[in-house]
Amino acid sequence: MTIILDGASLTIQSLIDITHHQAQIEISEEAFERLKSSRTLVFKLSESDVPIYGFTVGVGWNKDKKVFGRYFAEYNRNLIYAHCVSVGPYLKEEETRAVMVSRLNALLSGRTGIQLEVVEMYKAFLNAGIHPRIPSRGSVGEADIANLSHIGLAMLGEGEVDYKGRIVPAADALMAEGLKPVVLGPKDGLSIVSSSALAAGTGAIVLDQALKVVEIANAVYALSVEGLDGNITPLRPEPNMARGMPSQSACAAQLRGMLSGSYLEKKGISKTLQDPLSFRCVAGIHGAVLDAIEYVHRFLAIHLNATDDNPCIIPESEEIISCCNFEITNWVLGFEMLGQALAHLSRSACHRTIKLSDPYFTGLSRFLSPDEGVVQAFQTIQKPFTALDAEIRHLINPVSTDYYSVAGEIEDHATNAPFVVQKTAKIIDNLYYILGIEALHAAQAVDLRRVTAHGKGSKVLYESLRDAVPFLEQDRPLSYDIQKAYEVLTDSSLIESIRKTAGTLMPENW
Amino acid sequence: MTIILDGASLTIQSLIDITHHQAQIEISEEAFERLKSSRTLVFKLSESDVPIYGFTVGVGWNKDKKVFGRYFAEYNRNLIYAHCVSVGPYLKEEETRAVMVSRLNALLSGRTGIQLEVVEMYKAFLNAGIHPRIPSRGSVGEADIANLSHIGLAMLGEGEVDYKGRIVPAADALMAEGLKPVVLGPKDGLSIVSSSALAAGTGAIVLDQALKVVEIANAVYALSVEGLDGNITPLRPEPNMARGMPSQSACAAQLRGMLSGSYLEKKGISKTLQDPLSFRCVAGIHGAVLDAIEYVHRFLAIHLNATDDNPCIIPESEEIISCCNFEITNWVLGFEMLGQALAHLSRSACHRTIKLSDPYFTGLSRFLSPDEGVVQAFQTIQKPFTALDAEIRHLINPVSTDYYSVAGEIEDHATNAPFVVQKTAKIIDNLYYILGIEALHAAQAVDLRRVTAHGKGSKVLYESLRDAVPFLEQDRPLSYDIQKAYEVLTDSSLIESIRKTAGTLMPENW
Amino acid sequence: MTIILDGASLTIQSLIDITHHQAQIEISEEAFERLKSSRTLVFKLSESDVPIYGFTVGVGWNKDKKVFGRYFAEYNRNLIYAHCVSVGPYLKEEETRAVMVSRLNALLSGRTGIQLEVVEMYKAFLNAGIHPRIPSRGSVGEADIANLSHIGLAMLGEGEVDYKGRIVPAADALMAEGLKPVVLGPKDGLSIVSSSALAAGTGAIVLDQALKVVEIANAVYALSVEGLDGNITPLRPEPNMARGMPSQSACAAQLRGMLSGSYLEKKGISKTLQDPLSFRCVAGIHGAVLDAIEYVHRFLAIHLNATDDNPCIIPESEEIISCCNFEITNWVLGFEMLGQALAHLSRSACHRTIKLSDPYFTGLSRFLSPDEGVVQAFQTIQKPFTALDAEIRHLINPVSTDYYSVAGEIEDHATNAPFVVQKTAKIIDNLYYILGIEALHAAQAVDLRRVTAHGKGSKVLYESLRDAVPFLEQDRPLSYDIQKAYEVLTDSSLIESIRKTAGTLMPENW
Amino acid sequence: MTIILDGASLTIQSLIDITHHQAQIEISEEAFERLKSSRTLVFKLSESDVPIYGFTVGVGWNKDKKVFGRYFAEYNRNLIYAHCVSVGPYLKEEETRAVMVSRLNALLSGRTGIQLEVVEMYKAFLNAGIHPRIPSRGSVGEADIANLSHIGLAMLGEGEVDYKGRIVPAADALMAEGLKPVVLGPKDGLSIVSSSALAAGTGAIVLDQALKVVEIANAVYALSVEGLDGNITPLRPEPNMARGMPSQSACAAQLRGMLSGSYLEKKGISKTLQDPLSFRCVAGIHGAVLDAIEYVHRFLAIHLNATDDNPCIIPESEEIISCCNFEITNWVLGFEMLGQALAHLSRSACHRTIKLSDPYFTGLSRFLSPDEGVVQAFQTIQKPFTALDAEIRHLINPVSTDYYSVAGEIEDHATNAPFVVQKTAKIIDNLYYILGIEALHAAQAVDLRRVTAHGKGSKVLYESLRDAVPFLEQDRPLSYDIQKAYEVLTDSSLIESIRKTAGTLMPENW
Repeated sequence: MTIILDGASLTIQSLIDITHHQAQIEISEEAFERLKSSRTLVFKLSESDVPIYGFTVGVGWNKDKKVFGRYFAEYNRNLIYAHCVSVGPYLKEEETRAVMVSRLNALLSGRTGIQLEVVEMYKAFLNAGIHPRIPSRGSVGEADIANLSHIGLAMLGEGEVDYKGRIVPAADALMAEGLKPVVLGPKDGLSIVSSSALAAGTGAIVLDQALKVVEIANAVYALSVEGLDGNITPLRPEPNMARGMPSQSACAAQLRGMLSGSYLEKKGISKTLQDPLSFRCVAGIHGAVLDAIEYVHRFLAIHLNATDDNPCIIPESEEIISCCNFEITNWVLGFEMLGQALAHLSRSACHRTIKLSDPYFTGLSRFLSPDEGVVQAFQTIQKPFTALDAEIRHLINPVSTDYYSVAGEIEDHATNAPFVVQKTAKIIDNLYYILGIEALHAAQAVDLRRVTAHGKGSKVLYESLRDAVPFLEQDRPLSYDIQKAYEVLTDSSLIESIRKTAGTLMPENW
Repeated sequence: MTIILDGASLTIQSLIDITHHQAQIEISEEAFERLKSSRTLVFKLSESDVPIYGFTVGVGWNKDKKVFGRYFAEYNRNLIYAHCVSVGPYLKEEETRAVMVSRLNALLSGRTGIQLEVVEMYKAFLNAGIHPRIPSRGSVGEADIANLSHIGLAMLGEGEVDYKGRIVPAADALMAEGLKPVVLGPKDGLSIVSSSALAAGTGAIVLDQALKVVEIANAVYALSVEGLDGNITPLRPEPNMARGMPSQSACAAQLRGMLSGSYLEKKGISKTLQDPLSFRCVAGIHGAVLDAIEYVHRFLAIHLNATDDNPCIIPESEEIISCCNFEITNWVLGFEMLGQALAHLSRSACHRTIKLSDPYFTGLSRFLSPDEGVVQAFQTIQKPFTALDAEIRHLINPVSTDYYSVAGEIEDHATNAPFVVQKTAKIIDNLYYILGIEALHAAQAVDLRRVTAHGKGSKVLYESLRDAVPFLEQDRPLSYDIQKAYEVLTDSSLIESIRKTAGTLMPENW
Repeated sequence: MTIILDGASLTIQSLIDITHHQAQIEISEEAFERLKSSRTLVFKLSESDVPIYGFTVGVGWNKDKKVFGRYFAEYNRNLIYAHCVSVGPYLKEEETRAVMVSRLNALLSGRTGIQLEVVEMYKAFLNAGIHPRIPSRGSVGEADIANLSHIGLAMLGEGEVDYKGRIVPAADALMAEGLKPVVLGPKDGLSIVSSSALAAGTGAIVLDQALKVVEIANAVYALSVEGLDGNITPLRPEPNMARGMPSQSACAAQLRGMLSGSYLEKKGISKTLQDPLSFRCVAGIHGAVLDAIEYVHRFLAIHLNATDDNPCIIPESEEIISCCNFEITNWVLGFEMLGQALAHLSRSACHRTIKLSDPYFTGLSRFLSPDEGVVQAFQTIQKPFTALDAEIRHLINPVSTDYYSVAGEIEDHATNAPFVVQKTAKIIDNLYYILGIEALHAAQAVDLRRVTAHGKGSKVLYESLRDAVPFLEQDRPLSYDIQKAYEVLTDSSLIESIRKTAGTLMPENW
Repeated sequence: MTIILDGASLTIQSLIDITHHQAQIEISEEAFERLKSSRTLVFKLSESDVPIYGFTVGVGWNKDKKVFGRYFAEYNRNLIYAHCVSVGPYLKEEETRAVMVSRLNALLSGRTGIQLEVVEMYKAFLNAGIHPRIPSRGSVGEADIANLSHIGLAMLGEGEVDYKGRIVPAADALMAEGLKPVVLGPKDGLSIVSSSALAAGTGAIVLDQALKVVEIANAVYALSVEGLDGNITPLRPEPNMARGMPSQSACAAQLRGMLSGSYLEKKGISKTLQDPLSFRCVAGIHGAVLDAIEYVHRFLAIHLNATDDNPCIIPESEEIISCCNFEITNWVLGFEMLGQALAHLSRSACHRTIKLSDPYFTGLSRFLSPDEGVVQAFQTIQKPFTALDAEIRHLINPVSTDYYSVAGEIEDHATNAPFVVQKTAKIIDNLYYILGIEALHAAQAVDLRRVTAHGKGSKVLYESLRDAVPFLEQDRPLSYDIQKAYEVLTDSSLIESIRKTAGTLMPENW
């Protein structure tokens, strides 16, 4: 699989192909032409008297200090060194790849004037699997300069990289691949570091995970409502059309697909008339997550295909001008909102799971015990999932405004973007445990209820889960069951099967 | 001014005309026809055996209790009584109007089967200015039943209303207007209370305020950057187009409009090359607020023109079915995001104001004193605006997931929507103080700098402010100046002048 | 009643006597002697060359500017003006009194060198009831300089005061009382403003309210557990002694006092064996509030009787040295903890109230209806109290670390103390509504249960409540009942009766 | 080293000796006698008709189900199984030890009636180094039943343990040590799981770390103030005594000890008169941390030496009664407060570090560069430490009230204690990075200033740091320096040297 990067058409899907499925990349010719003419402009301007940030003058507070042409290589190397200030833990391989592809594609917009050898190095690193070790923390989310510098370090043949499964000196990996360290020229240091590629790259991965977890949650819901013997009329098209919220309608449609063929389809209005809101409102709640995903997607897709640094080359007028193109507040806040939407999804899952334990709502045994007086079954398991939900409640507290005024008070705005993205990833991870526990309950309930006519989607989930975790006949340590359920839900084969069977919520141009 | 409500075309603007400018309302004929046929269906179904929530059976946990036809009036009156449980303070007049118009327009979708006399009563209340006293707190944001009931109470001729500037018994106001109390029939109680009209109506007002505060903030920025003698190249179209974020470009465009004619237009790149981010990133930061506003607007506009209650009449199949159409999680989270975006706007305003006090950045005197050794000027004023910003930081903490499982554990999802809206209103109010203080600094700075060539927008603001607050020649108690600046900024004439002069950011179909 | 202030023995109780019960104050002779000798030292040092903060040099960033002796009056008046920067709403009368008495008592420690006429003015203002109008917001909690300045303004005969129930110019009130405006001398401005008296004074009031609300909550609990027909063995001394937590034991003891004579005393272990934790853990949860109160009290009592400003006179060595005696982080964090403890109290009250509505736990009717099919009773009331609890959940979010670096980056630490105190007050106010609703349930439950043998404390509460709110025989608008219950619980006569009947939790030296 | 456990005298220090330094334990004879007589009582009561929670009847919602004597072994084994529901990651070895010693010591109070063989097993596990694998998450902090069960599992010879550095089946480790799996009898299951030993044990470790980090922070401060050439008069005893806050005075005293001999001692009042508050207020801010530590310590010390479960044996009256002795809200809130206090410490460290980079405050070069135009030095490093501080700001958000009502609505109060403890540990870990970076600045500053006369404590720190990280002569990747500084600060030898040199803040009876 080969993906052509052109600075304009990178999608979440193609990014994931590169980061997770090792797709090879090419750079489009047009992009190369843009890079060349920008580089030419850089050299032209380097002889002018106009001060240009990070180029003919220093960066940050040091913008009042001139950088002389003869020191370009030294200055830019020092800039890389002085920016290598991030703190562990290191990024995972796919995250490092996402950072590199995000930075590379933005460079292809031709707005930085970076030298072509550096651009080629990104491509070489990605295609050869040379992954610089990047400590993940230390960016305040207004250009991830403290982290991206570690990519520059590796390109200089210094520091360490993760290469073919081992941690080796960057110089060794370069040599093994026949690559020569780059020699930085004017403006190259800043072009490497001045970007939000850490947040954007890891954000793209997390956004993809968020979409998947909604669809998995829909499948779990489908099994749960079967376990409850619940009322699925709220999923009918008519009331949802009357409401007019597109995402609610879309979720209801996927859920109808998942429940297609289920015994619940044949029931009229159930005797309970209305199930608890955690069941009844599923299309609206999961729809709110979808809306948040689409919000982030709208802006992140723009971000991945545009310059995100400062200053900006204006080819028409042959200028390099200061700007605020690293600004990402809109999509960072989108991630904060997404976290809150996922927290609603989480709470609903928790409440559904509690209901599935309760004979008043299910008509089944207490705690879904196969033998109430003897087997304690899901008696204590309400603690772990509510405890994990409490962590989610904590994670959704906002952090984007909690920055300092630094660099001689010049950098007095920030977003804490990488941490916001990381919080979202943690929310999703916890959610898989919570949904796993819900699925354990749902499967136990349908077994106790001897459901045979599953919906198409709930059947896929049920069978995958029962392959890994048998019916709870007697008490056994459940920590292991929880872990297995987590693994079933996060296995990529499940989401693929579900999408194949019941359709997907994936937005256009994903 | 008369506005025709039809259940489908209510905009923020027309709502504001009704709530703040006393526009009279009419109800479209089509809407009336829908209401009639729904009511007919209600009577038809009341004779069937199908249990219908809040109609032939009780509400909440009492959905297992049958409601007999002969008790419809008594049952529905009791339902209104039992739902009058909200807690003060009372809504303001314009808020009460917004709640009524929001509920009325949703009823016109014909999904509730409410009797026409009740619908007429909403219209009469709005047109005659009968405003039921509604205690504002007590809703968990999943249908504002505890508050909307107070409108029903007034329609029954009970409780109190605000009428022609006085608090009088509802019965007196009805009599004065020649209105008879309604006699509730089947399903009427639920149709009155089962709606998020409190959150939606007050939300519409707050959303309008949010848009205005961004534009005011742009005007204040324009004056500040003149006060700083700052660099406005980041507002040029080229770098913003390179970035491609529509809202950033839109803000930059309005700001260019505001600064059109300013002395800053003639300067090249300033000697400082790049101003602090609080100045440089204004288009991106204010753009993020705009994006959040558009997100809320998209869904709130749907909400205001669709059913938001349960159950839902499906005329095609002559059914009333349970659903989750009161679901509003998506736009409630939008308000939470909007609050966070406004917090960024606030912090930037604070940092700009600090910079305007600092000779290092302005080249002017310390604390903008007209006589440094003698006049202390804006020495201590940094405390109040940062203290108000700390309140904003506190207000943006999320609250939508903090609900209980109530009503016999059936209501296990909620949003705390009215409180979220109210938090946003408080953020905006604080912001006007913060921006007022920024404007005091900016005006002092341009005076010290003897700026004469203002931009078109900054000139409007400067002159309005200087009409109310003179140059700080000697120390004086500044609490009064702050209050006056707040009043200048919140006066509707200012936003009108600014929009007239420099264009508006108002989205389509507002 | 007359209270002698000496700078060393002010208690919460005596402060409340002054603020709420108009006790007159005297100043001890020893304190006067200290003031005199400090003032003498000030004049002595004013002739030396040693720079002294806010005295011979300016304040804040202006500490590098010399203040010349001949300008002392003008400089100090300007200092007062420039510090009048706080923002409304205005403090209430008792709060203003608390601020003045707090500041006055700290001045008596003789650490500021303030002139005696100013000290006399505090006393005159308190004794004559001249209350300067102080806008409440604008302090970052590191000396409330922006607010305390308004007291100085009134002493200068400027600004407005609240005097004998009317808002009048300060000059008029001074004249009416035969007082002459003060003429400020060296260091007086700073001595008036450099103090955390706003936070400390209002904090003392709030702390007293916190103690009362715990005791009221204990009384409400006692009535609730009677309504539940619950198990009171967890209140027995033995298990609490086994635990060894003093506050848990103290709460259990007060609760035993409240329940002394109750029908519950005669029951053995109830058939339910263990009540829900919201009932069972009451002594521990309320004990945690007590512990937080004692923590704040310990440090606030020190604060009220010591200098809280900078610089500090050292009489032994005849120096005035810079220090950090305005530091209050420890007790501000105590207030944050107290808020969280109260939130636990609130949640438990909410859960108890939900249980009292539930036949499964009470054996009574659903929603405590006197006639289940006909009267809806406390069906919807679960929304308001959980909504108010959600506000409390929001209020407990911390704010003390959210400050800026201001005043030329010199003031880079703060606490937001006044806002923290105000948050706590709001929590307590909401709590009274929540507890009021619990009390309504508890009273209804004991009536349905026909309890006659109340405990001593629950009887006091029951009778007070039933004087204001009758048994719910038929549905009626409950907003009014809620308001009445709130008034019963906040009326000072109730807490007095309860303390008289069942003892108090008031700590030593309160 | 051998420590005798008696249920009454376990201190933080002795716990650390057991957990970190492998001290062997013995059980006192008196404790054994108590255990025996409690066990006798259990058997006696097992024949009575009185229902006893978790003994003759089930736990949680199942308290309405009888447990018959002949099923005691099976019931209790099932109880262990059904409670093994916690979620990874696993506890670290020293944490597992802390959990076991905490549970064991509480059992020795003789309030549970556990069989002696189980008690012996705790001792054997600790002394032989058999460490059950305990997934760390899943407790809501109201008895850590979901986690402690895993200890029971290992005692049954099931599940896995960490033994001599390897993960092995529990059965293998038992066999290797000649231990036989326990056979559970009446009440044993509950006695193993019903305790907050996870939170208390790990909490004791974290509390010890909190104390250490304050003292390390004092040492870093001492070096920083030397780097600043700052004013240390605020540390003098006189102004601190005037204030009267014991913890502020204690910190000032330790700081004077650390700075004893420093060149700063000889200076009079510096020309800057007053340093920024981040420097000046150190004694008050660090004192606030100390106060929070003492608050937690007071209650945790009680907790570690008392029963923390339910029900409770009352030997005097031969009863087992339901109670709330697992209640820990007071000290959980103490940890929340401690986190907030540490956040203040963190922010001050960040602000001090910013100041050390700023020539305006230091008189040294910008970013402490040894050659301003050429070496960029600490230019970018302000991002990582403020980013880590933003994480701390996020971590201090409260979580203790965010619980559900579970177990058939009976468990409607909780504290999330283990997560609160874990948050505090994370705060401390981040703090060490932040302080490490401050120390790098401080050392660079004293080197640039050519300080030779260090204080006693600052000298210890300076030398330890310079052994690991040389002076920054030229730009180099600083991530490595940061990591080394972190290691220097967390190395136990440093805290020991500092305490030896300058005294300790360790409270009495630690």
